Formats: sequence, structure tokens, C-alpha cells
Amino acid sequence: MISEKVIQELKEICGSKFVSCEKTDRVLYSYDATRKQFLPDVVVHPADAQAVSRIMTLAHHHRIPVYPRGSGTGFTGGALPVHGGMVMGMSRMNRILDIDQENLVAVVEPGVVTGDFQKAVEALGLFYPPDPASLKVSSLGGNVAECAGGPRCVKYGVTKDYVIGLEVVTPTGDRIETGGTTMKGVVGYDLTKLFCGSEGTLAVITKIILKLLPKPQAKKTMLVVFDAIDGAAKAVSAIIREKIIPATLEFMDGRTLDCLRQTAGLSMPEAAGAALIIEVDGDREFLDKQTQRILTVIESLGVLENRVANTFEESEEIWKIRRAISPSLKKLGLEKFNEDICVPRSRLPEMIRRIEKISDQYNLPIVNFGHAGDGNIHVNIMADKADAKQMANAEHAVEALFRATLALGGTMSGEHGVGIMKAPYLSLELSSQSILYMKTLKKALDPHNILNPGKIFPDDDAPLPGEMK
Amino acid sequence: MISEKVIQELKEICGSKFVSCEKTDRVLYSYDATRKQFLPDVVVHPADAQAVSRIMTLAHHHRIPVYPRGSGTGFTGGALPVHGGMVMGMSRMNRILDIDQENLVAVVEPGVVTGDFQKAVEALGLFYPPDPASLKVSSLGGNVAECAGGPRCVKYGVTKDYVIGLEVVTPTGDRIETGGTTMKGVVGYDLTKLFCGSEGTLAVITKIILKLLPKPQAKKTMLVVFDAIDGAAKAVSAIIREKIIPATLEFMDGRTLDCLRQTAGLSMPEAAGAALIIEVDGDREFLDKQTQRILTVIESLGVLENRVANTFEESEEIWKIRRAISPSLKKLGLEKFNEDICVPRSRLPEMIRRIEKISDQYNLPIVNFGHAGDGNIHVNIMADKADAKQMANAEHAVEALFRATLALGGTMSGEHGVGIMKAPYLSLELSSQSILYMKTLKKALDPHNILNPGKIFPDDDAPLPGEMK
Repeated sequence: MISEKVIQELKEICGSKFVSCEKTDRVLYSYDATRKQFLPDVVVHPADAQAVSRIMTLAHHHRIPVYPRGSGTGFTGGALPVHGGMVMGMSRMNRILDIDQENLVAVVEPGVVTGDFQKAVEALGLFYPPDPASLKVSSLGGNVAECAGGPRCVKYGVTKDYVIGLEVVTPTGDRIETGGTTMKGVVGYDLTKLFCGSEGTLAVITKIILKLLPKPQAKKTMLVVFDAIDGAAKAVSAIIREKIIPATLEFMDGRTLDCLRQTAGLSMPEAAGAALIIEVDGDREFLDKQTQRILTVIESLGVLENRVANTFEESEEIWKIRRAISPSLKKLGLEKFNEDICVPRSRLPEMIRRIEKISDQYNLPIVNFGHAGDGNIHVNIMADKADAKQMANAEHAVEALFRATLALGGTMSGEHGVGIMKAPYLSLELSSQSILYMKTLKKALDPHNILNPGKIFPDDDAPLPGEMK
Repeated sequence: MISEKVIQELKEICGSKFVSCEKTDRVLYSYDATRKQFLPDVVVHPADAQAVSRIMTLAHHHRIPVYPRGSGTGFTGGALPVHGGMVMGMSRMNRILDIDQENLVAVVEPGVVTGDFQKAVEALGLFYPPDPASLKVSSLGGNVAECAGGPRCVKYGVTKDYVIGLEVVTPTGDRIETGGTTMKGVVGYDLTKLFCGSEGTLAVITKIILKLLPKPQAKKTMLVVFDAIDGAAKAVSAIIREKIIPATLEFMDGRTLDCLRQTAGLSMPEAAGAALIIEVDGDREFLDKQTQRILTVIESLGVLENRVANTFEESEEIWKIRRAISPSLKKLGLEKFNEDICVPRSRLPEMIRRIEKISDQYNLPIVNFGHAGDGNIHVNIMADKADAKQMANAEHAVEALFRATLALGGTMSGEHGVGIMKAPYLSLELSSQSILYMKTLKKALDPHNILNPGKIFPDDDAPLPGEMK
């Protein structure tokens, strides 16, 4: 419980109307995309870095858990207040402070919505590549905390590759700046990259400096349908082996296509076993040639059909298919165990075969799609929530999936992070020495473990007193 | 002093002939490119990670300072054994373990020479962009520890951008793996990037996993001569503002050209005030167009002459000029205070003006050249070593240079690191809170401060008992 005195201080720092202990407000900030729910004691919305610093100083003094929150679109519970305490919503800090066209650099506050930022820079002929599926809602602060990815990462890299500086508040309330607006800088440790993907456990992000690129002149999208999943998986490797790196290289397996046929009216050859969406970008005159090279490379791999978009509208038609996947899956009415494993690209065919075996073994449909170009597949294990046996099997299937992934030199998460969802499996991937090293670091920087406690590390995770069933 | 018992144990770990306390060997490992000199007590050359781990465990137990060393080409003293103790040479661990053409990933040991590695991957049609000037000698382990840069970084990024995984030994002797061979991965803290550029103070690198790119099909080099320095500096900004990012964008000021005329027989218009070497790369048919666009963008900025290379030999002629700079400067017989400041690109003209003022104020020639494309200029303050007044003035000029750089939003080091050379100035750039945060991190991970002590942080730096005058 948080004392009335502390609540009063929080009101002085944020303004009364930005601090709430009302049940309705607390419920609003109790869940995220995992649909798990933990009730905080108080929700605060600071206006600026100074307020964040004062709040952290207070929380450090009173040992109050603090959970920074962007838009709550995370898939692993990064924003969930698993030990109660305080949710710190960053939505008031939502200004684009600068877009410097001379230096291709932008400065933003953490609450800026990713998609809004992309539109703002594209209007100036610039380009911010990271494009998580949630970009219309997700915040840049959340993207940085989780190191978000997206389809374009195969060519352009992930969020971290664009973050060149930060202003943060530490767990003890200090405001520090890391990196800067220069393209290079090697003075002191690279805290910028350490904070990216640290899932809000090391610092509260209050300002972000992002590198931008010139916007590619044009792009060309194609949908390629394969007779079997193996051909599509091999095509991914074949394209890269040819030293072509498309802007996106998205994959849908046969079950994904079935699901799209059933619930989204997709028309596609009956024999379709998988499909790829491939997009190339760059100079206009260059794209036709590259498209042709790709089609040549993959033609012997069981291609049933290819649709090359010649207009923006035709391209949008293809992307509509990709965007329809998640809503389609939802319509099946099943519980979805959504994992984002990543393997070296060349291991994709073998990974897909192993996933099929897991599906057979546990008698559960598994729907695979996602960023095949960088080996990052969204594996959706589907189970009937009302069927305890299926739900238990799904848990076993998740563990089997992680073990198979790691056996192929992969990682349990390409872009979603660990949070609370993968924390119990952490020691499958990281050695005890690695975990100890990370915990030593966390402990030194957050001695009272008040900043986003209960995330990443399995021990911290054991008691989750706040969970609402 | 290190006891005979410890020396015996080191000999058991490395083999007798790879452990030496002989004065001649110790002198060999007492200096680097800073030409400062500190004598170690012992020099060891471990064969593998297991040996490194055993050495670190021993050193941790006996509180012996350990100084990992690549090829000793650093400009800030990163490899210097400033507190005596042990130099750990990594040259035996020099195997390229794997070049995976399907996944565009390589695995190497830290002692592999950068240039050798580049040749090996280029023979397979692949590309490892970071190209520090020392690449024929420098090791990849040293490059990672210092986060080396080079001319191509303007388009391709620095060493860190290619390191996706590491095996390291911690100061307490644990072997841990970070990252991996996948293109994405967000499980746990990003220790990979934390170790890159940490100047060997947090971990000894024993294996490196590097991302590769397809090798660009072709490149085109041009030399553009300007009547004045301001035009060249403005040209850099103008090119980027036009959303063209050349593969390299190197700058030479008038004094650099004078020096090349005097000592390297460079022929260039009398009125030349500065020059740029611009290289574009990519698809062959694309390059002429891009070259033309660049020449159009900069034509009004005082261009006296441009030479566009049409053959490999003509391109090499241009690069010969760039490579002649350092030897030319040496021929002047003056002490060179070589700094590698970096400012936002658009601030280059102003930065150059401020450097000219500093040159006037302290009555010392300052020669500027380097990676203007990313705002990273090598500033060489020249002084007569025999003239105490000049040498003192040079020290003042260095500080004035750093202050001017920081005033323009820059950093004291784009690629050389802090080491011992910039440690006294650290608090000009980083706040006391930032420094404290970094030291807290260092202390938690290296409680006895045995791994490369005396680097980066000014306090540690105060007594340098080993320095040989």
C-alpha cells in the first residue's frame, strides 16, 4: 500500500488530475496485449523528465515498485504492474521535439506514437524503418524499451539500430543523458544500447534521439504462392544466398492461408501450401531488375503463382492479406500462444519441420507467419481455453518450441522480449553465469529493485501477488 | 610484483614459452600508437578461452591488473599496462572459425587481423565494412573493444553495428556468451553492445560473431578540390541534405594539402583550400547517376577541379593521396596531438572556423582531415617536442578543441575511445551522474578493478606508477 502522504507528493509533482487511485483507472492500466491482469495501487502521468526524476526519487526512498508504460501493446507483459505499486504512464510526454533534416536526426519524447512519427518524417522525405505491427498504437518509448522489430528489419535493422542517444531517469532518480546527436561517439560505456531492450528495468526513458534515413524512392511488392512450406522456407535462404536483401520478406504457412480463406475471404490456389510477401525498395529503375532476379532464384522451389504489384493499390492489396492474419486468427475463437522465435535463416526449413512435429505431438494446430527474412517467425499455438487438457498441452508445446529453437542456434525472442511470459524459460537460453551477470548489473543500478520488478529474471518472477484471475 | 608461484601457474595454463618476464618482452608490450610507455610485470599469450578464464580467475584471486592487447594500434592507450601487472596478448587466438554464406554471418577469434578478415569475406562476395586506417595491423578484438570506425562508416556504420554476438571472459573468470548468430534477439540485456567500445574494461573478448553484407557490385571514387575550406565543409552537409549517403566522404583541409605537396609530391591547383574524396558504391549502372547528382549539388560551393576515377587504378590514385596523409605529417618531425572529435555534420563549417581560431590563439598549426561524412574529423595539433612552450600550448589547444566540440553538440571521440588520453577530460563531456552510473556498473562487474584499470575514468587514472619517462 502507498501512504496518503506519498499520494499527495505525487499529486504535487504531476498535478492532481494526473494521479489516480480510483479502481476504474487502475483497472485501465492493469493489462496489456498478453491479456494478463495485475492491479496497480496508483497510476501517475508525469509531464516531463523533471517530474519523472522526482517520482523515481520518491519511489526509491519509499521502496515503491514503478512500472513505466507506453501504449500497453507488449506481448510479454513488460508494462504489467506484477507487484502492484505505481504505473507510470508516459502518454503526456508525446512531443516530436525536432526533426533535423540537415543531420538526419530526430529528437522525440517517449509517448510519441510510432506511426505518427513515421508519417511526420516521411512528409519530409525521410524514413524511420522500424515497423512493429502495433505501430498505429505503440509508443516509441515502448519500442525502445522492448527493442521492437517489424517486417522491414530484415533490410533495415531493429529499433536499437536507430537509437543514438537517450535521456533517462535512473531507478535512484538521477537524470542522465547517453549518446547524442552525432553519428559516432565512443566516450564511456554505451548505455544507449544497454537501455534499448532492457524492458524498462534499468531506466525510465524520457527523451529519444533517433537516426533517420533518406526515404527510398520507390518500392515493389510481390506475393509468391508455393505448393509446400518447405519451398517457401528454402526460398528465403535462396534469396539471401544470392546476396539480395529485400526490404521485407514475410512468410505465411498453409494454416495461415487456410485461416485467411475461412475468415477473410482470401482467394488463393487450392494447392497453396505457403506464401511469401517480398518487397524490394530503392531507386525506381532498379526494382524491376531485382524483382526479376528474385523470381528467377526461387522459380524451381514449387512456385504456384506470383503476383507482382504494379501500382500502389495493388501493393496495398497484398499487404491487406498480411494485415488480415491477426484478426483472422482471433476469429477462430481459440487461445493463441503467440511466440516470436528467431533462428538463423538457413535453419528455417528444419525449424518448420520441427514445429509440425510439435503440432502433431500435442495435437494442437500451430499457425506460423512472420519475418522469415531474418529467421523471426511468429508461432501461434492454438488451444481451446475451455479445454484444460489442450491448455496444458499448449504450455508443453511452448517449451518444446523453445527447446527446438535453441537446438537450431536460435533465440526464444526476436522482438517481443522476455517480460513475465518467457521469464520461466530464461535458463533454457542463457547460462547461469549470464543470468548472474545481468542480475549483478541490475542490482548495482537498482539496489532496491523498484523499477519494473518481476520481469526478465525468473527468481523475481516467482510470486506475482497482484495477479487478478 | 607477481609471485613466482603465480608465474608458474600462468606457465601451466599457457605453456612456458607463452609466459615471459624478460625485460625485452615486457618492453615490446609496453607501448602502443600513443607512444606512451608502461612496463608490465609479465606478458602472457593464452591459446583459448579456457586459458583466458583460468588466467582471469587467478588474477581476480591475486588482485593482479590484466591488460588485454590486440595489435597495439590504439590512439588512446587502451592496451597500455598503466598499473603494471599482466599484458594478455590475444595474437594466438587468430582463427576465422566460420564464414556462413547462407546466413551472412562469420565467427572469429579476437586476434584475427581486420584486413585479413575483409579479404577472406570479399573472396566469397561478402563484405565487412568497418575499415579503420590501421586495418592491415589491427585485430578484430581490438576493433570491437574500441568500437573502431573508418571512412566507410558514414554509410555502413561502425564496428558495433556488425557485432551480433560475443564470447567473453568476465573479470571474475566466468565465460559467458552474448547474442548469437540470429539477426534479432531480445532475451536479456544486450551485453554484446555494452562490451563493444568498453575498451577492455568489462570483459576479455574470446570470440566474435559478425554480421556480413553482400559485397556492393561496384564503386566510383572522385576527388573534388575546393577554393576554400568553408565550401568543402558545406558540401558535406549539402550532399546529405540531398539525401545522398556516399560510401565514404573524406575531407582534407588546406594544411593537409600543403603537407602532401611538400612531402608527398601531390600536384594540385595553387588555390586549393580543401578537398573531398567521395566514393559511391552499389549497382554499376546506378553509380554514374549518383556521381552526377553529387557534382550538381556541390558545384556552386567553390569547386576548382574534380577528378572522377573511371578505372580501379584511377580510384587507387585518389586513395593513395588519402593514405599519404599520416606518413606526410610524420615527416614534418613535429609532435602530433591527434584528436578525433565528432560533431553533427551540419556544424562542420562552424567547427572548422573554431579550430582555425584555436590555431591562431595558441600559434600552432592544426591539420584537419578525416571522415567528414559523419562529422568525425581528425584534428592534428602540431607542436615542436623540444619547445616546452609549444607543448604546453598544445595541451591547452586540446582542451579548447574539446570545449568547442562539445559546445557544438559534438563528442570528444568518434572512434578512438577515451583510454588514458581523454580520461582527464571526461567530465567535460559526461555529467557526474553519468560517470557515477558507469563506475557503479564497472565496480559491480569488476569488484577488484583488475581488468584494464586506469582507463576511461579520471580518478582511476591519477597515479600511473608504471609510466616510463
